[in-house]
Amino acid sequence: MNITITGGSGFLGQKLAHRLLDANAWSDSKGNFSKVEHITLLDVVNPSKELADNPRVTILTGDITETSLLEKAIPITTDSIFHLAAVVSAGAEEDFDLGMSVNLDATRTILDICRRHGTQPKVIFASSCAAFGGDMPSVIEDMTARTPQTSYGTQKVVGELLVNDYSRRGFVDGRALRFPTVVVRPGKPNKAASTFASSIIREPLQGHSAICPVSRESKMFLASPRSIIENIVRAHNISADDWGPSREVTLPGFSMSISGMEEALRNVAGNSVADRIKWQPDPFIQKIVDGWPPVFNTEKASALGFVKDSSMEDVINAFIEDELDGSKAAI
Amino acid sequence: MNITITGGSGFLGQKLAHRLLDANAWSDSKGNFSKVEHITLLDVVNPSKELADNPRVTILTGDITETSLLEKAIPITTDSIFHLAAVVSAGAEEDFDLGMSVNLDATRTILDICRRHGTQPKVIFASSCAAFGGDMPSVIEDMTARTPQTSYGTQKVVGELLVNDYSRRGFVDGRALRFPTVVVRPGKPNKAASTFASSIIREPLQGHSAICPVSRESKMFLASPRSIIENIVRAHNISADDWGPSREVTLPGFSMSISGMEEALRNVAGNSVADRIKWQPDPFIQKIVDGWPPVFNTEKASALGFVKDSSMEDVINAFIEDELDGSKAAI
Repeated sequence: MNITITGGSGFLGQKLAHRLLDANAWSDSKGNFSKVEHITLLDVVNPSKELADNPRVTILTGDITETSLLEKAIPITTDSIFHLAAVVSAGAEEDFDLGMSVNLDATRTILDICRRHGTQPKVIFASSCAAFGGDMPSVIEDMTARTPQTSYGTQKVVGELLVNDYSRRGFVDGRALRFPTVVVRPGKPNKAASTFASSIIREPLQGHSAICPVSRESKMFLASPRSIIENIVRAHNISADDWGPSREVTLPGFSMSISGMEEALRNVAGNSVADRIKWQPDPFIQKIVDGWPPVFNTEKASALGFVKDSSMEDVINAFIEDELDGSKAAI
Repeated sequence: MNITITGGSGFLGQKLAHRLLDANAWSDSKGNFSKVEHITLLDVVNPSKELADNPRVTILTGDITETSLLEKAIPITTDSIFHLAAVVSAGAEEDFDLGMSVNLDATRTILDICRRHGTQPKVIFASSCAAFGGDMPSVIEDMTARTPQTSYGTQKVVGELLVNDYSRRGFVDGRALRFPTVVVRPGKPNKAASTFASSIIREPLQGHSAICPVSRESKMFLASPRSIIENIVRAHNISADDWGPSREVTLPGFSMSISGMEEALRNVAGNSVADRIKWQPDPFIQKIVDGWPPVFNTEKASALGFVKDSSMEDVINAFIEDELDGSKAAI
């Protein structure tokens, strides 16, 4: 089985690559098991040396908006594509053309390459809960209209629609997953407006202060990297029949206020750590976050067996285990 | 005021052109009135001689997927664009690439031309209730997810999303209108799967038989050309503020069974006319029609003052008046 991951050097892309390489067996759409023979990681930067040195991994670096690069990344032998590459929310808001070309055009190019192959590969597309916004009901249901209020969200919903139509026509076997805000992200802040949600956990745990630009009352819809990776793999393995006519789903998450996150950090790591969160209101970020729907009823995801995090405390402990080598040394 | 109509030689495009040319005054977004000075009609075929001879009308014929033609059709002096051109449902299903290039790419090109002008022209985009499909609730509300089950529907929803985002960013002042099935269309059947809904009224009134490929119990969501034209003009004149963050709306229509349409024809034109409907079930068309949602609650449209047809009988009488010169000679 040959796999391509776009955004393969991103933190989710690398986690997914490890997860797939570690799996001894892999079930295909017919329930048969086949080994992951090869993974191509496509990104603008290189992944870790460990991944780059793996004989089952090929690294491709370059601009995802170049069709020739995508054609190289997705040869006819490709069984499954995990399309994670994106220009995130604030990035696509800052540079409209870049967002359109990466988030919309490159997605369409990937689907068209698959269509030309005629092999109906699986395409797992990372969408986002930024699909929702504006005048919304208090709880977002599976059948609530996608009314994005950012260019990023717009481009992601267009991707969902294309994945659905290309699947309906038999060009690909697609699945579009709406991610909640992922916490706790390792590494550095990115250009997502939500990046602080990871910073206020990640930085204090490593002895640094972190600025929270929104009020304690602000609510967000969250999911951990562990549950996201598990659900990406599950989305791949669910049979086409079980997906039915609609190839999209909002992944399970948990709704939490910022004060709830602060409290969980306090419970896990103590007062000295939690007190490293500094409160510096930023009306610009506050307005964006206020525009996001905080509460979802992810019935379809539950019916399809997608997993959900148990608590914010568990999410923080998993971050310490996975990213800080189990150590709270700086505490 | 300078106006461009794409699909300007289509039956709705020509009706709209006449409506705009007849209007002595025209209100802009600020409620000011200005005269319609010039209309450019863009289409693959020519409009009527009457329109072509009008000194206030320019005719452009050619392929809407050619950017240079669109640039010619939408000069920087353009105040408003009515974008009606489309490859209809069965057409876009038959030829995927044609549907994508006309329904999606040309729409985006129009929006991009407007963006480059920097003049924020109004763009009124014709979408469709084919935006809905698959596993739907019994009544489609304004906030029901758009889950198209055709390539045409997919391309139209993508257009809606782009119109919204380009409006939010201030590139255009857009409005996307989801049309119900338009009855009674004059002329010849087109490639829409719904074309029979017009044929079974139009043909019997002119002394010809017409084939109904679906059962009498089948229900459809309908609107007349008169109400559609009125609502297109209204959509243009409603101020940006009244539209709010979402620039899309399902236009009002009425839900009717095929037997209800047959009965209305009988009421208006008598048994001998209504008996010209021949019943020849076509499972392919039946399946498509069964996939369309028949009942809508168009609350937003009502709040914005869009009009609704009073009865199927009135719709038929209006067709006789507008298209058959008031004559039921063949009856």
